[in-house]
Amino acid sequence: MVKILVTNDDGIHSPGLYVLADAVRGFGDVYVVAPEKPKSATGLGMTLHKPLRVKRVPGKENTFAISGTPSDIIHIATNVITGPVDLVVSGINVGDNTSIQVILSSGTIGAAAQAALLGIPAIAFSMAVSDGEEIEEQAEKVTQVIRSVVEHVLTFGLPEGVDVISVNLPGKITEKTDVKVVPAAKLRWRELVDERTDPMGEKYYWIYGEPTEIEPGTDVHVVFREGNIAITPLSLNINVPMNEGEGGRIREYMGALRANVAAVIRKMH
Amino acid sequence: MVKILVTNDDGIHSPGLYVLADAVRGFGDVYVVAPEKPKSATGLGMTLHKPLRVKRVPGKENTFAISGTPSDIIHIATNVITGPVDLVVSGINVGDNTSIQVILSSGTIGAAAQAALLGIPAIAFSMAVSDGEEIEEQAEKVTQVIRSVVEHVLTFGLPEGVDVISVNLPGKITEKTDVKVVPAAKLRWRELVDERTDPMGEKYYWIYGEPTEIEPGTDVHVVFREGNIAITPLSLNINVPMNEGEGGRIREYMGALRANVAAVIRKMH
Repeated sequence: MVKILVTNDDGIHSPGLYVLADAVRGFGDVYVVAPEKPKSATGLGMTLHKPLRVKRVPGKENTFAISGTPSDIIHIATNVITGPVDLVVSGINVGDNTSIQVILSSGTIGAAAQAALLGIPAIAFSMAVSDGEEIEEQAEKVTQVIRSVVEHVLTFGLPEGVDVISVNLPGKITEKTDVKVVPAAKLRWRELVDERTDPMGEKYYWIYGEPTEIEPGTDVHVVFREGNIAITPLSLNINVPMNEGEGGRIREYMGALRANVAAVIRKMH
Repeated sequence: MVKILVTNDDGIHSPGLYVLADAVRGFGDVYVVAPEKPKSATGLGMTLHKPLRVKRVPGKENTFAISGTPSDIIHIATNVITGPVDLVVSGINVGDNTSIQVILSSGTIGAAAQAALLGIPAIAFSMAVSDGEEIEEQAEKVTQVIRSVVEHVLTFGLPEGVDVISVNLPGKITEKTDVKVVPAAKLRWRELVDERTDPMGEKYYWIYGEPTEIEPGTDVHVVFREGNIAITPLSLNINVPMNEGEGGRIREYMGALRANVAAVIRKMH
């Protein structure tokens, strides 16, 4: 029997978590393990200096809340709750996870990436809505999209070189919704800081974002300009290829840097 | 005048922060902006739902503590404190940041990556010690290594395709220390979970790691087996290349997946 771990970063009370869990239930044994509190924008962050608690959620089968991050959950779940799993699905996130900028700090994709590091195929689902209820209202359509993706991955596995498949759904799925395989844009936001003064006269700051220009052929364009579904394969291999094409220039640069540092060490003694 | 932002994830009281700041002081105007509390393993996590505080550190010039993550700091610093900067250096982290597994959840590298997203050249320094005092004891040697790296990057910039340079120093720098340009290993730890029972009879869990097998030619091998310095260029481009070699297979896989999802949507209406 296939074992599927369902998680998210919006927390155990997020409706998107249960739409996703119900969507995959037909494929095997489903475990739902999610943070007890929302953990958005925690990336692959982990809890190293605090013990973690695991609570069974009453009235729901195989459903657990954990006092940690999405990445913690992958380790706690597979070590303590589920044993080895065949697939991790993360989401459905309230809000898109488009662009490398957003992906790298996303807890939804962080959970999937953490699973991928353990060699577990992982799919992240996100939807460009501002409220979990918008996901519930479209649950039937969303469910069919999820099932078609999951079925493909369970049947064929992930191809070598792909660690995570990230699916970004537009705010509304209609008969006109198209599906595109596209790379993640580099940026989605220009971060700004709002300075305010509290009633005690002390300054405090909010970080917020303004949308950047949207590049055609990217996940941001597909979801927000076109209103279509973006499917983006991701690799965790952040090493710079040094052997080919442009790589010669990089290898030369790195070689010179290495020689600099080595020369300094020789002179020390 | 070159402007350099120095940050870390170990927090404003970490000795490694000041060894790094002092090392780069000769190159330009130096600003030290770090988390008021340690923020290890926060990756590129950001604080979106809480306001942030900025405190000037008394007795230290251009030194500020912020109630947020390393990634928050990049935005707060460049928006409110420093204006545009020419270079971000992050560290010196107490403990290595070797392997993709560790890099992706590292706050030290998270700060550098966040800077890179803004187009700022960024270097992360980490040292395989367990205590900041071990960095201070070797401050003179470490300083020279840092200066040789920073000088190269300030002189030539970073080559296209390289977003962050990560330097991992061994626990001891001696006349035998060599310098190698190597990719990051995939894994450094196998995560395990320790189950305990508190005095109230409730279970709690610690996540901890056991070292994995060490692959030659990687950062982990260079630092821990050889005791040498590992320099690793990193790219934030986590998109899977689909055009070449193996990519044909990936493109085919993704094309079939796309067709599946598109068929499901057509049938909905």
